[in-house]
Amino acid sequence: MKLSDIVAQLGGELFGSDREVEQLSPLESAHSQAIAFLSNPKYQSQLHSTQAAAVIVHHKITDVPEHLSIIRTDDPYLYFAQLAWLFHPRAQATGRIHPTAVVDDSAQIPASCEIGAHAYIGAQTVLGENCRILAGAVVEHDCVLGESCVIHPNATIYHGCTLGNRVEIHSGTVIGGDGFGYAPVKTDGSWFKIPQTGGVTLDDDVEIGSNSTVDRGAMEDTRIGKGSKIDNFVQIAHNCQVGEHTVIASCTGISGSTKIGNHVVIAGGVGMAGHLTIADKTFIGGGTNITKSITEAGHYASVYPMQTFKDWSKNAVYIRRLSDMNNRIKQLDQQLTTLLSDKHS
Amino acid sequence: MKLSDIVAQLGGELFGSDREVEQLSPLESAHSQAIAFLSNPKYQSQLHSTQAAAVIVHHKITDVPEHLSIIRTDDPYLYFAQLAWLFHPRAQATGRIHPTAVVDDSAQIPASCEIGAHAYIGAQTVLGENCRILAGAVVEHDCVLGESCVIHPNATIYHGCTLGNRVEIHSGTVIGGDGFGYAPVKTDGSWFKIPQTGGVTLDDDVEIGSNSTVDRGAMEDTRIGKGSKIDNFVQIAHNCQVGEHTVIASCTGISGSTKIGNHVVIAGGVGMAGHLTIADKTFIGGGTNITKSITEAGHYASVYPMQTFKDWSKNAVYIRRLSDMNNRIKQLDQQLTTLLSDKHS
Amino acid sequence: MKLSDIVAQLGGELFGSDREVEQLSPLESAHSQAIAFLSNPKYQSQLHSTQAAAVIVHHKITDVPEHLSIIRTDDPYLYFAQLAWLFHPRAQATGRIHPTAVVDDSAQIPASCEIGAHAYIGAQTVLGENCRILAGAVVEHDCVLGESCVIHPNATIYHGCTLGNRVEIHSGTVIGGDGFGYAPVKTDGSWFKIPQTGGVTLDDDVEIGSNSTVDRGAMEDTRIGKGSKIDNFVQIAHNCQVGEHTVIASCTGISGSTKIGNHVVIAGGVGMAGHLTIADKTFIGGGTNITKSITEAGHYASVYPMQTFKDWSKNAVYIRRLSDMNNRIKQLDQQLTTLLSDKHS
Repeated sequence: MKLSDIVAQLGGELFGSDREVEQLSPLESAHSQAIAFLSNPKYQSQLHSTQAAAVIVHHKITDVPEHLSIIRTDDPYLYFAQLAWLFHPRAQATGRIHPTAVVDDSAQIPASCEIGAHAYIGAQTVLGENCRILAGAVVEHDCVLGESCVIHPNATIYHGCTLGNRVEIHSGTVIGGDGFGYAPVKTDGSWFKIPQTGGVTLDDDVEIGSNSTVDRGAMEDTRIGKGSKIDNFVQIAHNCQVGEHTVIASCTGISGSTKIGNHVVIAGGVGMAGHLTIADKTFIGGGTNITKSITEAGHYASVYPMQTFKDWSKNAVYIRRLSDMNNRIKQLDQQLTTLLSDKHS
Repeated sequence: MKLSDIVAQLGGELFGSDREVEQLSPLESAHSQAIAFLSNPKYQSQLHSTQAAAVIVHHKITDVPEHLSIIRTDDPYLYFAQLAWLFHPRAQATGRIHPTAVVDDSAQIPASCEIGAHAYIGAQTVLGENCRILAGAVVEHDCVLGESCVIHPNATIYHGCTLGNRVEIHSGTVIGGDGFGYAPVKTDGSWFKIPQTGGVTLDDDVEIGSNSTVDRGAMEDTRIGKGSKIDNFVQIAHNCQVGEHTVIASCTGISGSTKIGNHVVIAGGVGMAGHLTIADKTFIGGGTNITKSITEAGHYASVYPMQTFKDWSKNAVYIRRLSDMNNRIKQLDQQLTTLLSDKHS
Repeated sequence: MKLSDIVAQLGGELFGSDREVEQLSPLESAHSQAIAFLSNPKYQSQLHSTQAAAVIVHHKITDVPEHLSIIRTDDPYLYFAQLAWLFHPRAQATGRIHPTAVVDDSAQIPASCEIGAHAYIGAQTVLGENCRILAGAVVEHDCVLGESCVIHPNATIYHGCTLGNRVEIHSGTVIGGDGFGYAPVKTDGSWFKIPQTGGVTLDDDVEIGSNSTVDRGAMEDTRIGKGSKIDNFVQIAHNCQVGEHTVIASCTGISGSTKIGNHVVIAGGVGMAGHLTIADKTFIGGGTNITKSITEAGHYASVYPMQTFKDWSKNAVYIRRLSDMNNRIKQLDQQLTTLLSDKHS
């Protein structure tokens, strides 16, 4: 790919010679046919040591060795991501239904779609153009998928779910499983299942990683808004509402009926109680337990600091006595105050 | 459905006119053809604003507007759950084996069962009446399933597992995978796999959500007792014994050989060490780490309280110094005691 | 199996009569045709009460009742594990491709391999001898598997992954799903997907439990070293490097680009931030949050100690005030010091 072709497609300004580049590489490991990028000005000195033929840099970067070709842009990291797609174009739907796929007669599958080996599409399900339903994936009856959705191998979408355009669901993920709802039976302490009659709605451009779960609502749909990105092993319980362009990292569990705003960033390993509201643009640190609503955007955390086991053992025992420690401090304070006032009187 | 028909089937007492209702809705969003329920007396005032035609209420609720039809019962929430099944009856087994399903010749499948597309049933496996094994589900060899079990799409049951009647396993869940057992090889620090030769036994009316795992026992079966309900993303390690009517919420991991009693409620995100015993009727709060047995029922917790990142940073640093803080309090106490005794002597 | 045959195959020294044994059992529940083992000298007294015909013990154990046959060895637990395989030999590849399996014409499958019902093998994928790809498992295109790999039902391996010899992947696990990488688009706060163009490399003798995920690298492979063992529900994010003979227990999440050494042991429920380095032979306790690199081997922990909810409520509130408490201690200290110096001056 010629640098001038890249700039023609993606914008930015080219400085230096118009070379041919073969691949996109990290700055430090790039070889002489590669194009690299500098997203953090802190690593600017690597421009002098890199073997790359060309580098994508911010307009503000000035200290560039003469032999390097440079593409200047406002956002080198985004430019790199866009360029990566030119080198590795997204797989396109083949327009082929594999002979082993099972598609219900009443399902509507445009000719542009690809249905993989052993995939299953249930009754009344409607796909948009260019969808890819890959090997072993299951889309049950009465689902609606927009255009260009990708359902990876062995993912499962229960009946009655609605996906917008360009939704991507990775392998092992389950959309629309029953929410965890039971009425306690007072007479014998058993649990009586409440039918989960809502569905799941995933808006345009939602992507969900591998082995995640989004449960169907009890009476209305569980919803994930436009452009939100969900990692592997994320549990979204019934009736949750996730806003737009929100990011949820791995190993996070959101309990039922919680509402998460737009542009929220949730790091990994977060646990969230049910029926909470999380404000737009909130940032939640890894491993945080959220037991109350967050009404004001900000950065929140609740991680227990790591120590060696020996030091942890020595200190953690006082966690259970903090109230006593505080009482003793108060007492000392009072005794000392009395002593000082006696002295001065 | 007429209100009198509902009462005829489910009990309760009807007051007001015998209307036709079309659906079951939340009190606040119900329209004029809907029946709603009031389970928490705190929301009693909504009876005056609801558009519902009829409401299920507790016998004790007195302040009811005259225009509403009312069904009175001892347990409105349970009544709602039971009524929901009348509006949304459970899917029944079709009695059809899909032509793409693979059923071993030696498996025993009653004619009442439904076997979905691309499902697989291994050798010597025996199903009870009315089971539904849905698309892409795998039940390996030598399993026994009771009546009316439902195995959702792409769930997997390893060989030699035993399921009671009415057991429901959601998509992506794995029953009977190998327990995590290795003998350390002292000579080179490698790990030698211990064959996991037990199975898994799930008693009647157990339900397990999506993408959970119950590992097979090392030498004997891992067991989950009658009526227990397990959410998504729950890990039950090898040799665990879970009692009856116990509830385990999402993102919880139970380590090997732990015994959990009956009627225990475990909230989400709980971690439990191995070889523990948890007393009947224990309640464990979300995010709790259990490292010791619980011998007395009660409500247990261990969550680190959330703060803004700034406040967390300011405070969390002292977690590592709690022992020092306590020592300084002790010292101050001694100094002050000496000072006071000096003064009085 | 005769005791002399066992010793002939596995080594160790036989003392007492050369009996026939039928099964391997725990010491306390063994019956008279069983062989048991004593791995912990603390339970030595059970040798006197066991019904077992024979027991595997360490060379140092001296107090053995005369009627027992004994196999003496340096490592009774490892010997037990080895013997267990004699009683329960590993399933062998049948050399049969099930008629419902879909194998791409360009894939290379040695005649010794077993390909199960509804399994799928993509284009250009190459298997070694004696592999078992079980029912519903998917191995996409351009993968390379070594000899004697086992891919359990409904597991998924994305394209371009490399597995060594004797790698075992349990059901529901996803190898090579896309890493969680997006460039923020500053103009509208949306997220632009970065194509994940690396793969995953699992070295010889890696075993991964059920429903785990190992994401493909962004530009280079995510790697797990020789002999490492990964439990259920473990998330290994893109670009991670796990060393050799490392063990990671269930419900643990490792964020992107973290490097874990050799012979590391990570207990369950651990969360690890990205871009960290963990030293060889580190031991991390269950539930620990790791936010900094660990440069020195040792035992690390960060668990919040459990209490009853009542006691927790009373104490946890002070977590948010630790800095204040420490300031008051300092203040008291200063006041007291002043008082004491006044007194003595």
